[in-house]
Amino acid sequence: MRIMVLGGDGYLGWPTAMHLSGRGHTVAVVDNMARRAWDYEFGAESLTPLCSLQERIATWQTLTGRSIAAYIGDLTDYTFFEPAVRDFQPDAIVHYGEQRAAPYSMIDRRHAVFTQVNNIVGTLNVLYAIADHVPDCHLVKLGTMGEYGTPNIDIEEGFITITHNGRTDTLPYPKQPGSFYHLSKVHDSHNIMFCCRIWGIRATDLNQGVVYGVDTEETAIDERLATRFDYDGVFGTVLNRFIVQAVAGLPLTVYGQGGQTRGFLDIRDTLACVELAILNPPDKGEYRVFNQFTEQFNVLELAQAVKAAGEELGMPVMIHNLPNPRVERESHYYNAAHTKLLDLGLKPHYLNETLIDSMFEVVQQHRSRIKEELVMPGVDWRRTHNEVAVTGAPVAA
Amino acid sequence: MRIMVLGGDGYLGWPTAMHLSGRGHTVAVVDNMARRAWDYEFGAESLTPLCSLQERIATWQTLTGRSIAAYIGDLTDYTFFEPAVRDFQPDAIVHYGEQRAAPYSMIDRRHAVFTQVNNIVGTLNVLYAIADHVPDCHLVKLGTMGEYGTPNIDIEEGFITITHNGRTDTLPYPKQPGSFYHLSKVHDSHNIMFCCRIWGIRATDLNQGVVYGVDTEETAIDERLATRFDYDGVFGTVLNRFIVQAVAGLPLTVYGQGGQTRGFLDIRDTLACVELAILNPPDKGEYRVFNQFTEQFNVLELAQAVKAAGEELGMPVMIHNLPNPRVERESHYYNAAHTKLLDLGLKPHYLNETLIDSMFEVVQQHRSRIKEELVMPGVDWRRTHNEVAVTGAPVAA
Repeated sequence: MRIMVLGGDGYLGWPTAMHLSGRGHTVAVVDNMARRAWDYEFGAESLTPLCSLQERIATWQTLTGRSIAAYIGDLTDYTFFEPAVRDFQPDAIVHYGEQRAAPYSMIDRRHAVFTQVNNIVGTLNVLYAIADHVPDCHLVKLGTMGEYGTPNIDIEEGFITITHNGRTDTLPYPKQPGSFYHLSKVHDSHNIMFCCRIWGIRATDLNQGVVYGVDTEETAIDERLATRFDYDGVFGTVLNRFIVQAVAGLPLTVYGQGGQTRGFLDIRDTLACVELAILNPPDKGEYRVFNQFTEQFNVLELAQAVKAAGEELGMPVMIHNLPNPRVERESHYYNAAHTKLLDLGLKPHYLNETLIDSMFEVVQQHRSRIKEELVMPGVDWRRTHNEVAVTGAPVAA
Repeated sequence: MRIMVLGGDGYLGWPTAMHLSGRGHTVAVVDNMARRAWDYEFGAESLTPLCSLQERIATWQTLTGRSIAAYIGDLTDYTFFEPAVRDFQPDAIVHYGEQRAAPYSMIDRRHAVFTQVNNIVGTLNVLYAIADHVPDCHLVKLGTMGEYGTPNIDIEEGFITITHNGRTDTLPYPKQPGSFYHLSKVHDSHNIMFCCRIWGIRATDLNQGVVYGVDTEETAIDERLATRFDYDGVFGTVLNRFIVQAVAGLPLTVYGQGGQTRGFLDIRDTLACVELAILNPPDKGEYRVFNQFTEQFNVLELAQAVKAAGEELGMPVMIHNLPNPRVERESHYYNAAHTKLLDLGLKPHYLNETLIDSMFEVVQQHRSRIKEELVMPGVDWRRTHNEVAVTGAPVAA
């Protein structure tokens, strides 16, 4: 198949591009290098050293004999994106090409507006390009489990059957997202569902949990194929940050009580899920939603797992509870369905000591690159102005 | 109270500004004249002749002794809007300042992107300006009943209590909007609800039905105070179009079967509802939703009412069923709650022969201004390119 990976230079985009190329698909990546530029905004960088996209593609070609095409430009610029789609004629588009950090969207008004405009316009452009040039193309869109928030009832996969005053309908699951970023994904989901209805587009919305891990079958081939490992307060996700804190001898910073429960998955399962979605496309006009995670944990449980693994490796690890910079429930019911990808054949890599140990190994290998000043949260949800991008260093909440 | 009316030069904004000024409030309007500019895009204009905003304000001052301030600029430009809010210090902001036509948003990609960016960014700017400068200010936001779509269960006012797998929660009512415009209102609603939660903003989301009528207590004072009457295929609403068609001797064009049921209200009730919301504000941090309509009709029923009234006035009136340019159910269950505004004291003006006759009178008075070529629908939901703005004349569906 011909597959276009939007955001194909990013944390998940690049491993996905290699994975699909390795399986024999014809792959093109589209990227505007925004993620690399955001690092400069904060004086941050990936813990793992990164080659340029051009070097990555050349290395992949040399080592595997397979080529990956690259279109460098911005999805919000239709004069760039439309000809790229017309030229490449994808059978599937995997859409990671969005601003994907909740704290980034909460820095201030400019970052909130940027996040929503960037994500919404990019996705509208993708929908129009599909309708106009590749109407049978399958859109595989990365959403987030954060679209649902933390309702007091079971979370279903995209839709819920409601009986009310004696009548019944199956309706989009109510959304209660917790940041301007998460809101942008909710807006995308509504827009995509509508376009499937009016134009007959086929789409899979992958409401993904928090991804951990950095090694995939393909990144492991050569260090020049490595993907990002973010641990800073803006782009770093929780497990990465905890392991960096443990290795740096810093306390693990749990936001609030740590009872916040979320869905998680291994990066290798992200690649497997995207591939399963592509190989099992929806019908024309069908909008379907898969909840893409394999296990639920709360933040304190993750901190305790990292503490145990660190101490096993001989590091003393402390856990600190910080005042929560986010506005979220710290103790709540959480039970989310996630059977549709298992039904398609997903074989999960569950989080275990071996995986945590391998992440410790990566972090220890690059220990000298840790910038401790970047780890603390610099963005407070209750403020409309956070100085993180003004000083170049995060401000403690 | 100090009340700022965003979109205060528009169909509802101007009558609202006068109504609130007439009740003794200190009123400022904010407008960028976009609605007048869109007329030039299509070679259209209001059936009722309109004075400029400056002439309207001068006339109002002369006739009532009351002044209305005006800030002319674009809500999406924060360097304009922030100082306006800081300067005026509103106790309430009534937000009509959005692109409000579904067909306009469905013309093509540019109009879809414009509508969503314009509406979302404008509303984000309003939310930030309130949080930063007038944190106690009450946001009265115009939404639309179209956010809900046509579910097969009763529509509630913003939230629904769901019992699922033995647990219960009250959650945002699921949304199934039917155009990029209606989607923009859904996006706004999610953004506003979130800002109430994180910043303690108080907001009322008025999910309004289709408004009809052109005369209010204040517009009736002097013809220079008249508000718009749109009948074109892009901005005209259904009852207006039918009456213009009847007066012009054209068949009434019912889209499809005409079984599409919607909520409707008289323009005078819009003003009353907005005033009731302002006088009964929500608590700090509260996001509430009122369904703002007074009666449900389907499109065919309205056509039949106009036909009957026209024939009573001696005009032969035909009804034609057109292929539906929209993608919507033409026969469906529809039962939407609308008790919250009645509980606050709304006394509805129901649609009756007298009101329809008075609309006929307005149209007959301005009969020579009717441009017949503008009445037909020029925008087809199934197309990604509609030529309406290219040729200056609508293209038949």
